[in-house]
Amino acid sequence: MSYNSSDIKRIIAEIIEAKKDKGGVRSLYLVGCGGSLGALYPAKTFMEKESAKIKSAWINSSEFVHSTPKDFGENSIILLACHKGNTPETIQAAKLGRDRGAAVIILTWLEESEIVEFGDYIVLYSFDASPDHLAGNIDYSGEKTLCALYVAVELLAQTEEGYANYDKFYEGARMITTIIRNARNHVADRAKEFAMARKNDSVIYTMGSGASYGAAYMESICIFMEMQWLDSSSIHTGEYFHGPFEITDSNRPFMIQISEGSTRELDERALVFLKKYAKNIEILDAKELGLSVIDGSVIDYFNHSLFNNVYPIYNHELAAERQHPLPTRRYMWKVEY
Amino acid sequence: MSYNSSDIKRIIAEIIEAKKDKGGVRSLYLVGCGGSLGALYPAKTFMEKESAKIKSAWINSSEFVHSTPKDFGENSIILLACHKGNTPETIQAAKLGRDRGAAVIILTWLEESEIVEFGDYIVLYSFDASPDHLAGNIDYSGEKTLCALYVAVELLAQTEEGYANYDKFYEGARMITTIIRNARNHVADRAKEFAMARKNDSVIYTMGSGASYGAAYMESICIFMEMQWLDSSSIHTGEYFHGPFEITDSNRPFMIQISEGSTRELDERALVFLKKYAKNIEILDAKELGLSVIDGSVIDYFNHSLFNNVYPIYNHELAAERQHPLPTRRYMWKVEY
Repeated sequence: MSYNSSDIKRIIAEIIEAKKDKGGVRSLYLVGCGGSLGALYPAKTFMEKESAKIKSAWINSSEFVHSTPKDFGENSIILLACHKGNTPETIQAAKLGRDRGAAVIILTWLEESEIVEFGDYIVLYSFDASPDHLAGNIDYSGEKTLCALYVAVELLAQTEEGYANYDKFYEGARMITTIIRNARNHVADRAKEFAMARKNDSVIYTMGSGASYGAAYMESICIFMEMQWLDSSSIHTGEYFHGPFEITDSNRPFMIQISEGSTRELDERALVFLKKYAKNIEILDAKELGLSVIDGSVIDYFNHSLFNNVYPIYNHELAAERQHPLPTRRYMWKVEY
Repeated sequence: MSYNSSDIKRIIAEIIEAKKDKGGVRSLYLVGCGGSLGALYPAKTFMEKESAKIKSAWINSSEFVHSTPKDFGENSIILLACHKGNTPETIQAAKLGRDRGAAVIILTWLEESEIVEFGDYIVLYSFDASPDHLAGNIDYSGEKTLCALYVAVELLAQTEEGYANYDKFYEGARMITTIIRNARNHVADRAKEFAMARKNDSVIYTMGSGASYGAAYMESICIFMEMQWLDSSSIHTGEYFHGPFEITDSNRPFMIQISEGSTRELDERALVFLKKYAKNIEILDAKELGLSVIDGSVIDYFNHSLFNNVYPIYNHELAAERQHPLPTRRYMWKVEY
């Protein structure tokens, strides 16, 4: 049996009930690989910032299996993201969860796959499977990043800690699809200009902070490195001034996320510097992109979904200008590794 | 009054005693910027893997100040690393700790600095201040990375959780100086060859996993980006196969850490792939470098110190070959930011 995002409240209630007499839920492990790990990043920051009592950690699947936290077991929830359900390291992590008596929640896009037999709850997320993810006709509030956040929000809300901004959070979730669709239209022209300007470059940096750093990480490793074979790194805007900023010059391009919410000041500071010393800067500003209608108490956690769904507009244009289609691979799914 | 690494056991005892009637120590926040944040990474992985009850998080100082965890307060320890005691963001974080009633431990190299007035405990760490850190005449067990680990180890050992490998850990700490000195001699010739081979490159990647990923991060942002103005990123060896490996070719250089301990298999898998598809690979293998004399139950946590102190031998040679001295900066401490 499989579930979707609207079932997560009930799933968490069931898990809490089942573990009530065994000491309760004491830890939440967020586990995946690459883009799937990146998509869990907002849930990681949510737990770090909002929860005092439930231990959480955000760990690559292979590292999790080889270097498993000692307390991982029947008082744990392991939340795994696995797009097609066939990533070997993530399947191993799910198996380990089952062996140790943890509650295993798997976020996936495919109802039938190798991993599902090891999950207690298979949550199917919405995903824009059109070429280059351009259709934009999905319910973005059902995507994996938000599903992971619902797990964290419900876990907090349904335990003694509580979550004061619960209603505001779901109010934000109901707004995100419209915000994203408008934002994608908004950047259409500048994405073309970006692609023309960047088509001969060999390196590009992404930048971000807070709960949306995960989107900068995903764009860097899954698009620029994996799908365009460009040198890249995702620089945290708070870390930028403590090393990375020394590479700034008039040639190197930067794609910077300006978040709405608590870490906006970090991003703005980096942008002021970039405007002074760099020339090739592409700015994704959540305020300009319409995110500010979401309540300030919860807005931090929606930046990632916005940026992550605006990037495809840029990616499509860049791939076209570079004549390097996004599905091109030299190793992934082609050679042994 | 200031302390050194040998006082940390007593410092933690004092903090635990002082907070006993206020609910005890419930969280440990590891906070810093750039290389100082990187140095706290092994303590982060230690807490994630070994502790079930004490919440911990590893956060850039500026992000911590702007997006402070809600539970940060009198039941918290904040452990800050600040090399010269003058990093504004880290000073702000220390102030916030004082205001909120947290126990503030500051790891620093300078006894007198701006930050010290905001710390309850100023711990002076050992540091090789010779040009390019080549002297090698210090007690490496007193360095900041190990001081941070002592805080985590003592916190676990002195609370009800306990730490079963306590004696083995300190046994390892007593061995690390000799191991590092031998390893630095061991790589002297190959570091020269590396520097000659890499002198005309414009990009270089570092790779690592587990508790030593922090060393790969530091080498990438503080040396290659900051001090050599090279494009760079630190790739987690478990994440490599989920995006970044698509940039691998016969030209791009990789500097890969092969850890001893639980995540060695991740590093070895990445190395097998690199050997097949890349040509410019520099291998830092903790086993070859003599780390294996440390007990297997604690060896994970010593890889970082080893790699981080072997890198300077390479860095010195690379800077010389590139005629780009390590202290060269264009922005840091020179312009407003």
